[in-house]
Amino acid sequence: MTRYKLILEYDGTDLIGWQQNHQGPSVQSLLQDAIKSFCGADADVVAAGRTDAGVHATAMVAHVDIDGGYGPDTVMRALNFYLVGRPVVVLDCAVVPDDFHARFSCRGRHYRYVVLNRRAPAVLNKNRVWWVPRELDVDAMERAAEKLIGAHDFTSFRASQCQAKSPMKTLDVARVTRRGDEIIFEFSAQSFLHHMVRNMVGTLVEIGLGKPFDIDEIFAARARSAAGPTAPASGLYFIGADYATADA
Amino acid sequence: MTRYKLILEYDGTDLIGWQQNHQGPSVQSLLQDAIKSFCGADADVVAAGRTDAGVHATAMVAHVDIDGGYGPDTVMRALNFYLVGRPVVVLDCAVVPDDFHARFSCRGRHYRYVVLNRRAPAVLNKNRVWWVPRELDVDAMERAAEKLIGAHDFTSFRASQCQAKSPMKTLDVARVTRRGDEIIFEFSAQSFLHHMVRNMVGTLVEIGLGKPFDIDEIFAARARSAAGPTAPASGLYFIGADYATADA
Repeated sequence: MTRYKLILEYDGTDLIGWQQNHQGPSVQSLLQDAIKSFCGADADVVAAGRTDAGVHATAMVAHVDIDGGYGPDTVMRALNFYLVGRPVVVLDCAVVPDDFHARFSCRGRHYRYVVLNRRAPAVLNKNRVWWVPRELDVDAMERAAEKLIGAHDFTSFRASQCQAKSPMKTLDVARVTRRGDEIIFEFSAQSFLHHMVRNMVGTLVEIGLGKPFDIDEIFAARARSAAGPTAPASGLYFIGADYATADA
Repeated sequence: MTRYKLILEYDGTDLIGWQQNHQGPSVQSLLQDAIKSFCGADADVVAAGRTDAGVHATAMVAHVDIDGGYGPDTVMRALNFYLVGRPVVVLDCAVVPDDFHARFSCRGRHYRYVVLNRRAPAVLNKNRVWWVPRELDVDAMERAAEKLIGAHDFTSFRASQCQAKSPMKTLDVARVTRRGDEIIFEFSAQSFLHHMVRNMVGTLVEIGLGKPFDIDEIFAARARSAAGPTAPASGLYFIGADYATADA
C-alpha cells in the first residue's frame, strides 16, 4: 500500500458535502468511485475537513491508500480522467509517509468566505458567493472580527449537531477586506467547530448591517441564540491545510 | 421616451451571444423580454459590443428607450425582478441624453481574457476560462503582446465573417500578466474586429507554448491563416466601455 496526499478543488453546489452517504454525490464518493474505476479497489479517502453541502474548496487536503506502487503523477492523471465532467478535480498528488493523516496530522485549516455586496444579484458568481444587497460597514466588521481572534469558548458559534467534545477553539486569523463589490472573510485555526465559520460570518454581517451585536457578550452567553444566523454555504471555501514539513 | 444607459453583467455560457435571433436566448432577447414584462413595450436594446455565444460581460454598456418617465432605480429593480434566474443582471441604470448611443458614442472598449494554466482542468471556474494545461512562457507572450499595440491592419486577426469596412484598428492596451494559476490578457481599443481578441489570444498562447510566430510577419501576411487559432469564447469578458463625460 502506498499513501498519497491529494490536493483537491471542488464546486460543492450540487454535492451533499464531503461525506459519503446514500443521499447523493459527495466529494468522497466521487473520488472513491474514480479510484475504483482506476484500480478496482474500495478506497477510503480521508479529508482535512468534512465540508457541508454547497461548500467549495480551492485546496482541500486528503489522503488515500492505494495498492500497486503507482507514481503520484499516474494517480493524479487517472483520477482526473475518471472525474471528467464531475465537480471535483485533483490539483496535486504526492507520496507521503504511512503515518501522514490528512485529518489528524493537520496543524492549521484555512477558510475564505465571499460576500457579494452590491444591489444586483450574482450572475457570473452565482453559487459562489452570498449576495448581501444592503451596504455593509467593513470597518465595524473588521473590528468585531479582531475580537474573535484567540482562545475562546465558541459555543455561541457552534451548530447544535456539532459532535466536538469541547467548544474551546483558538482562532489565529479573522480578517475582513473589501475587494471591489466583494467582501472577503478569512479565518485560520488548527480546527473549527461545525458551522463555526458560517456562524461567525452570519454574525459579522449583522454587525456590518448595524445590528448591536457585541462579540464579548456573544462569547459570554455561550448560547447559539446569542449570535447571528448561519451564513449560506455558497460563499464558503476551504482554501488550505498545514502539516509539519516532515509529513507533507 | 426616456433613454437609459444600462451596465450589465452576464454569463454567456448558455446564451447565443448578444444579438437576438430565433436560435435561442440571447442577452438582447432576455433584456427585451424583461422590458416587455415590465412595461408592455417592444424595446430595442443597443450594446457597446455584440459579444458572441459563450462570451461573458462584467460591465457591458447598453442603451434603451422606455416610455413612462420611470426613475432609473425603478427600471433597474424592475428589470432585475423579471431577470431572476436568468444569466443577465443590470448592475446600474442612469438616464442619459437622447443622443447617447451605446455603440456609436463609445470611445473605448475593454476586454479581459482568462487562461487557466495548470495541469488540472477547471472546476470552480468551468466555462469561465480557457484551460491550457501546458506551461506558458508569460514573458514571451508579454513581448509579443507589446507588438500588437498601435495602429495596424488586423486582417490576420479578423474572422472571415467580419463585416467591418476596414481592417485598420488601433490597439491601445495589450497586456499579459500571471496571477497564480491564471494568465490574464487585457486589451483596449476604440473598437475591435470580429473575433479579434480571441484570435490575438490564440496566437499569443501559441507563442507562449514556444511556436515560432512573429507578430510583425503575421501583420504583414494580411491572412487569417498566418496567425494562431481562435481562443475559446469561455475565457473572454467584456469589462467596460468609455464615453465622453457629457454623454455618460
